[in-house]
Amino acid sequence: MTSRGVRHDSMRARNLAVVLAAIHRSGPHTRAALAERTGLTKTTVSSLVADLLEAGAVTEGGAVRGGERGRPGVAVRLSGRRVAALGLEVNIDYLAACVVDLTRTVRLRRTVRADNRNSDPALVLTGLRDLVKETVAQAEAEGLRIAGGALAVPGTVEDGVLRNAPHLGWRDVRVADLVELPFAVDNEANLAALGELWFGCRDADFLYVSGEIGIGAGLVVAGEVFRGTFGLAGELGHVVVAGDGPACRCGGRGCLEVYAGQDALLGALPSVSELVDRLKAGDRQAMETCERAGRALGVALTSAVHLLDPGRIVLGGIYEPLFPWVAGPVAEVLEARLAPMRGAPPSVVVSRIGGDAAVLGAAGLVIQQVIAEPGRMLGL
Amino acid sequence: MTSRGVRHDSMRARNLAVVLAAIHRSGPHTRAALAERTGLTKTTVSSLVADLLEAGAVTEGGAVRGGERGRPGVAVRLSGRRVAALGLEVNIDYLAACVVDLTRTVRLRRTVRADNRNSDPALVLTGLRDLVKETVAQAEAEGLRIAGGALAVPGTVEDGVLRNAPHLGWRDVRVADLVELPFAVDNEANLAALGELWFGCRDADFLYVSGEIGIGAGLVVAGEVFRGTFGLAGELGHVVVAGDGPACRCGGRGCLEVYAGQDALLGALPSVSELVDRLKAGDRQAMETCERAGRALGVALTSAVHLLDPGRIVLGGIYEPLFPWVAGPVAEVLEARLAPMRGAPPSVVVSRIGGDAAVLGAAGLVIQQVIAEPGRMLGL
Repeated sequence: MTSRGVRHDSMRARNLAVVLAAIHRSGPHTRAALAERTGLTKTTVSSLVADLLEAGAVTEGGAVRGGERGRPGVAVRLSGRRVAALGLEVNIDYLAACVVDLTRTVRLRRTVRADNRNSDPALVLTGLRDLVKETVAQAEAEGLRIAGGALAVPGTVEDGVLRNAPHLGWRDVRVADLVELPFAVDNEANLAALGELWFGCRDADFLYVSGEIGIGAGLVVAGEVFRGTFGLAGELGHVVVAGDGPACRCGGRGCLEVYAGQDALLGALPSVSELVDRLKAGDRQAMETCERAGRALGVALTSAVHLLDPGRIVLGGIYEPLFPWVAGPVAEVLEARLAPMRGAPPSVVVSRIGGDAAVLGAAGLVIQQVIAEPGRMLGL
Repeated sequence: MTSRGVRHDSMRARNLAVVLAAIHRSGPHTRAALAERTGLTKTTVSSLVADLLEAGAVTEGGAVRGGERGRPGVAVRLSGRRVAALGLEVNIDYLAACVVDLTRTVRLRRTVRADNRNSDPALVLTGLRDLVKETVAQAEAEGLRIAGGALAVPGTVEDGVLRNAPHLGWRDVRVADLVELPFAVDNEANLAALGELWFGCRDADFLYVSGEIGIGAGLVVAGEVFRGTFGLAGELGHVVVAGDGPACRCGGRGCLEVYAGQDALLGALPSVSELVDRLKAGDRQAMETCERAGRALGVALTSAVHLLDPGRIVLGGIYEPLFPWVAGPVAEVLEARLAPMRGAPPSVVVSRIGGDAAVLGAAGLVIQQVIAEPGRMLGL
């Protein structure tokens, strides 16, 4: 009996996911059309849709053509009015939160400026918990129910533990218990790549380059992030540009970060916006700095294209405001080094969502989990 | 009726694959145990096993414990006596063929030395067809039946067309019609990685480095080859070691191939075995050449580890005989550059199967197809 009960529950959970995925993937459908698409009976579909309506994941409205005979019926579509996801980010310069609803519409967005370099994890996480409380309260006041959260961190993550975030100065910090909800933690470049996938370029194949104090990258192939064996892939900042180059804080020499990281770009300037102002004013030294950084980025991306074979290259983080001055040298180097072997090199485009990519990707990851496992994530 | 027939056939094909995969994955089973494992009825399993016996894919023999009550029964196991796969390789210096049976035992192995540099594809493929004929005839004389073939080529492949093999001097050569059987073509580094997976280290996570005139790499993550967006990933030979280094034939500068490809290693020497002889004799110049190549390989692999995050590194091709002189410098560079950020860098090991990796991997790929689709590959 128990065993049959378990089987029934797991089958129901799977069928819930099948129905929700069909609605998510191909838009509003009648129950009859959903039955046809999923191979489930109309009775089963009606019962599953009732649960999804009850949980606020879908809504009814509008007549659409559907069912075997093309008769119009009541359409069931994803609802943006109740189920939502919490995206969070600990960046070197700020804490960020956002709330995204099930239709992937951004509902709330908050940023708190902070200097988190070489910071005390406990203090920063207390600040983040306050931000979470405020954000969740505001979302709830708008009738939203947070199904889960995800956090983007500028470092390597294993099993919910932030192993090493060199610019924060954090090692082995457990960050998986920030909210009493399903919660995920991931590297900011991976989540920014997902942000670009769902909220930005919406392309299925690209390498997202996250320029910050460190330089990360997230490769998306056929809509999935490539993570490598231990989840550490995409460390573009320590790809070698010149084997005998200047020492890098990682212990290597001539890494990309030495030439094109935020510190190298800013020099003595206080901020990226100050650098942009000087570039706009035609400041020669600023132009040369960007040209040099762009060429180094081009060399590192040459190696990345040879190894990872991305569809296109999306420049984000600080390379988004600097794109007009950095993209040219990058594209030139790629063209010179890649064209003879590969024909046209991957195109280089600017991120559509800039600094929001990671926090939006974090929320998007939760939405993906809700679509994949509505039973678990919505308590159905 | 037709539609039901199609459904029935495709279900039967899927069930055949399920049963064969269960036998392949976890060894000999009785029909009763197979029914339990697969969730199929005993009648269905018996009928499927009868087809697999008829096709020579499985064999009976030996009593094993099985079934719900643990009674001994007749075991069904993979048979190495009939179904086999043809592996082929066009290398710069030779043509190779092998036959591997369904238990992944190597049954035949042939190599024909040839100088295929800047060769006429039509002539080389004629030679390859002759090799195929002889090899298939010999396999058939041993009672084997070739289910399909696969060819490893030193270049980039798209849809059965060899797009660019710079050392052969071939561009856009169709090689998919060498035998009237299911046939696949792939890059030699990818197939060598699969060869290492199935016939060599048998590890599930590693980067296979194929040192030849060009230097390729095949990344295996969780037992699957990572191919990138267009199937062009793993071009380790053109990863940049020094941005301002010597010109490479690819149009770039300071690529790994310039420092550690076969031409750089041999210089004026006629062969790798001559180089090995000099190294064994303690020839200083030969030692320095290997040391330099090893250090360059270490720098390129540093970038590869940061981007691809492999489990370990397997050195194959010409790095297999040169391993005692190359591995030390590689490991030293990886340790110096990676340890501070990653802890222990991936270990560097020698290929267990050396120059046979690609041709064995090609045959292994066909065996994988037979296990995945016995219906199609065995005409069931």
